[in-house]
Formats: sequence, structure tokens, C-alpha cells
Amino acid sequence: MTTLLNDRFLKALTRQPVDKTPVWVMRQAGRYLPEYRAVRKKAGDFLTLCKTPELATEVTLQPLARYDLDAAIIFSDILTIPDAMQLGLYFAEGEGPKFQHPVRDAKAIAALPIPDAETELGYVMQAIRTTKAALNGKVPLIGFAGSPWTIACYMVEGGGSKNFALIKKMLYADPELLHQLLDKLATSISLYLQAQVAAGADAIMLFDTWGGLLTPETYQIFSLHYMQKILASLPNTTPTILFTKNGGLWLETMAKAGSHALGLDWTINIGEARARVGDKVALQGNLDPAILLADEKAILQNVTQLLADYGHGSGHIFNLGHGITPDVPPENVAILVDAVHDVSEKYHHPLNHD
Amino acid sequence: MTTLLNDRFLKALTRQPVDKTPVWVMRQAGRYLPEYRAVRKKAGDFLTLCKTPELATEVTLQPLARYDLDAAIIFSDILTIPDAMQLGLYFAEGEGPKFQHPVRDAKAIAALPIPDAETELGYVMQAIRTTKAALNGKVPLIGFAGSPWTIACYMVEGGGSKNFALIKKMLYADPELLHQLLDKLATSISLYLQAQVAAGADAIMLFDTWGGLLTPETYQIFSLHYMQKILASLPNTTPTILFTKNGGLWLETMAKAGSHALGLDWTINIGEARARVGDKVALQGNLDPAILLADEKAILQNVTQLLADYGHGSGHIFNLGHGITPDVPPENVAILVDAVHDVSEKYHHPLNHD
Repeated sequence: MTTLLNDRFLKALTRQPVDKTPVWVMRQAGRYLPEYRAVRKKAGDFLTLCKTPELATEVTLQPLARYDLDAAIIFSDILTIPDAMQLGLYFAEGEGPKFQHPVRDAKAIAALPIPDAETELGYVMQAIRTTKAALNGKVPLIGFAGSPWTIACYMVEGGGSKNFALIKKMLYADPELLHQLLDKLATSISLYLQAQVAAGADAIMLFDTWGGLLTPETYQIFSLHYMQKILASLPNTTPTILFTKNGGLWLETMAKAGSHALGLDWTINIGEARARVGDKVALQGNLDPAILLADEKAILQNVTQLLADYGHGSGHIFNLGHGITPDVPPENVAILVDAVHDVSEKYHHPLNHD
Repeated sequence: MTTLLNDRFLKALTRQPVDKTPVWVMRQAGRYLPEYRAVRKKAGDFLTLCKTPELATEVTLQPLARYDLDAAIIFSDILTIPDAMQLGLYFAEGEGPKFQHPVRDAKAIAALPIPDAETELGYVMQAIRTTKAALNGKVPLIGFAGSPWTIACYMVEGGGSKNFALIKKMLYADPELLHQLLDKLATSISLYLQAQVAAGADAIMLFDTWGGLLTPETYQIFSLHYMQKILASLPNTTPTILFTKNGGLWLETMAKAGSHALGLDWTINIGEARARVGDKVALQGNLDPAILLADEKAILQNVTQLLADYGHGSGHIFNLGHGITPDVPPENVAILVDAVHDVSEKYHHPLNHD
């Protein structure tokens, strides 16, 4: 194994002392970068880019060439699993993901295969291996998957949705059927993430984009429960991050689910979140991505405030509260990353707690 | 003044004892009702329906003919104010509201007029007067407006939006400009709601649909502050409800803003919400609207649980956590309304606290 030259991210995840607060950006390999758009154009479409390991590796590394980031995240998509289940994933231009074969009844759910991670999703493992080799220990590499509930939302609705009426109707009218789907997804995702770790992923993040659409009770039963199963299936040595968008009300429960860290969106003050979860988990987040649309002054002011809100000591991985948007000027990301490193230093001096 | 035959809603709003928990449904006069769709068709388009007092009255009363509801809400839209400011509101079929003239710079904001409520928005006042006469004291009539922040979102973006990037950029890069817009809106909305009360509205609700997109700090500065100004401008005798969608993390702050009640979406347990706000405000909500897509069993089970979660005593107005959706079978609303009245009775017996 290659020794990591920068282990700030992994240390903060496990709440060990660091010299500066580590920072990475959700969707850091993305459309705001002209070099990403060039590779995407060369690939032809988004899915081909995901499925071509050398191109996925290339775009994964792009933001690291520009910015002093403390982690890379493998370029992929949360819908690779239902794609491998043969649901006919496609991306309609400007419309988001769609499935040719939505899954809406017992027969369709029973027929779903558990994809073999090393063959049917082998392109992801290959991209992880290639990226790890290219990184050569520069920073750790994050692997990821969508949560069972979030992936099920897309599979049942057949794409994105305003109200997610079909899956919610299933949840309330036929909960056992939904459990069958979620159980199959939890198994598939566990195998998928285990393979990512075996291929070299240094940490794992679970994206529960739509968990925040649930009630407190149904969140625990239909989303958190299955994420807990997945987390329990991963090697103890692999640090994990659980992110439920709009889950700020449920942090205490989430902190007990078995992940090393919780991702936060921007609707909660990170100092309050820290007070609520105590020393159970590290916290990742949570700058409003829209701040990157403004100017240097706004970025510096908000980064400084957020670091002050978290306060002294380790256990914080700086990030946005959601993915970076395509309209962000790339130079603003450099301002952000450098500001986090510069301003955070004083919060990591063992003798400086004023 | 006509005496109210059913004052459960107003009593619960001011936390006085009631015999049963009052219930109404956000968007109860809406597309799930075939008789609404018939009037809408007759009107030709949504905006004409809003602007024709006799038709607005007719659809306001429709759900009361079907269900044993404890309140009516005047049929209108939160965008009547920017429409009266001459922004060219139109509803593109299946696309939601749009403005021909979005407001994005200092010149456009300075040029915005404060609409005269009795003339430029007189059709709303006329609909309130006609509805009050037709109700003849059957139940109270709720007037409403959107929050300054929520209306500003539509005005700056020119319609709905995924990330609300334009207004958020304005917020972070030029906060003073946004304050000018919000201040003008707060004045306009105060005058508008004062006129609604003068026309006969028995209670007022403020809809802050997009407040939950803000950070805790910017929510207070750019949304709650202006709602507070509006609430302070209304007569003390008019009960008020403040509803910020996805505002569950901020209830303590919202409870101090001067409204009699807070509206809750379904992401918070109403018992926990009650414990957090204490006896400062009443609570309105908060059934997941998707439960109305399921069956009688699911509706009864969830209504029973929600009433148990709130517990004994007054201060609860039963409602959905967001507007009813067009795909709900109308008979399910009858099941809901009757279940609330039947099951809640035991929580209002002064000697029955087991």
C-alpha cells in the first residue's frame, strides 16, 4: 500500500488531531470546470463518461490539479446500481436521469437481480484502481453510493419527481413491497461498496438525497435502517460519511447509525450540530453552495464564520452543504479552499483556545 | 357582525379549549375536486379564476359543501402582489408561475410601486366580502399572503427555480439591494393583509414556501425579520399563522416572531414541536399529504398517531404539512376530516388525561 502524503481528511473523519481543517467539495469534478466539459464532450454523454475508466479517472483528478483539496471522490453516479439492474438508465438533456423500465409492482421487484460488483459494475472498480495509482498517495480517494431509499425513489418514479407520489403511495399503502425493494438495494449497495473498498477506496460516503422528504418515523424505517445495514457490512477500518439532505432535525438518530461522520446541508448551524451530536461523529459541511456565486469578500466572511461556529479541535471536514453548481466561477473554489486552510490553522493549535 | 357558528379553529389558534381538534386542508379548494376543475375550465385560466370574485367565492366554498371543515381559506395566489406591481404574471401550462419582467437590479427595484390593496387588489377584497356573506358564519375565513422572501424568490428568478441561484447570489453579493426589495414587499403585504382583515378575513396565514432554502442566519435576516414586521402591522385581534416550509430546525426563533400559531411540515414530529415551543404558540399541521394517496387504513392510522403525538389539550389545528396534491381521491379527504373530529374528542375532555 502507498503511504498517504496528506491524511488530514481521514484523520478528521476519525476525530484525530490535524494541522488544518481538511476540505473537499461535493461534485468537485463537475460542469463548473471547463476541462471537465471538454472531457464530457469527448465522451459524448454522461453515462459513457461514467463507464469509461480512463475518462472517469481523468475528471476525478482534474480539480486536484487546480486546488489544494484534501480528498478526491471517484467520478461516478448514484444510479449505476439500477443501471446494472437493467432498468435502462438514460439522461435526457436538461431533464435529469430517467429509467426506461420503472419498478412499480411485486413482479418487477422480484425480478430485480443483485448486480455483481466486480463484473457488472467493474468499470467503477477499474476507475478506482486507476485513480488510486495516479494519485500515488497524494490524497485519499472517497468511494460512494446512493442510499437505498434515494435510489428507490428514482426507480419507482422512473426519474426525478416533484412530490415522489408513486413511491410515497407505495410506502403508505404497501410498505412490505417497498421493504422488498429496499432490502434488495441494501444488499446490492453493500456488495458494491465492499468492492469499492477492495479496489482501494479509502473512505465511503452514502448520499441520501431524498431522505429529507420523509417523516421522522418513516425516515428511520425506510431510509436510515437500510443505511445502517450497509454501514455494518463495511470493514471497520474504512471511515464512512452519512449524508441525508434536509436531515438536520434527525442528527441524534443519525449519529447512532454507525457512520464515522455526518454530512450536513446548510440549513443547520454547524456549532449547534456539533453540540447535538457531541463526540459521537465527525461533521462534514456545510457552506451554502450559492456563496460561491458571490465574491471573494462573501466567501471569506462565510468561511471564517463557519470555522468559528465549529470551533476548536478536530472532527470537521469542510465542504459545501450540497453539490457545487455548474454556474460557479472556478476561481472562487480556489478562494474557498485556501481560505479554509489559512483560517482554520488557529483552531488546531493545542495550546490556543481563546 | 355575524356570529360564528363554528369557532373551533379560532379558539385552537388562541389555545382556548375546544370540543374537537379543528381541521382544514391547505389548497382545499383545488384541482383534486372535479367541481373545481369545472369552474377552472369555465374561467379559462388560473389567473382569471383568481381575479373573478364570484368564481373565487364559488371555489372557496366548494370543499365546505363536501367536508365538515372548520375553516375556509380564500381562493387566491401568493403572487397577486407582484402581479399588481405589473411584473406580467402568467401561468405556463404544467410549468408553474412565470414573470414577463423579472426584477434583478437596483433600477427595477426602485421602480416597483406599492400596490393599492383596495383598488389594484380589490378583486381579492371583493371575493372575501362575497365569501363572508355566503358563509354566513358557518366557519371562519382565512386570508393569506406569501412571505416577502418567498415572493422575492419568484420576482428575481422570474418563476420557480431549482437552486434559486439569482436571488441567492444577490443575497450574498449585494444584501442591501435585496433588503430594498424585501422592505417594499413587506410594506405591500402589510397593506394587503390589513385590507383583507378589513374586508372580513377572520385569521391570516403567511406562507413562507422558500424560507427553508436559507441558512439559519440568513433566514432570520432575510425572511423572518420581514414577516415579523408584517405580523406587527396587523390588528391584535386577528389570529395569525406563520408557515415556513422546512423550517423545523428554527421553531424556537419562529415562535418569538409574533404569530399566534406556527404551521409545520411533516418532517417534524408534532409532539416534539410542541415540547420545543411550549405554550408560546399554537401548532398547525402536519400530516404528510402523500398519506391521502393511500387508503382508509393508512389515513386512520396516521391521523390517530398524529393526534396522540400532539396529546391532550387545545392549541392544535389539524392540517396537512403542505398543500393537497391534484391526484388525491376526494373521498379520502372526507375520511381524514371525519377521523380528526372523531378521534380527537378524547383529547379535549378536561377530566380525561390518561
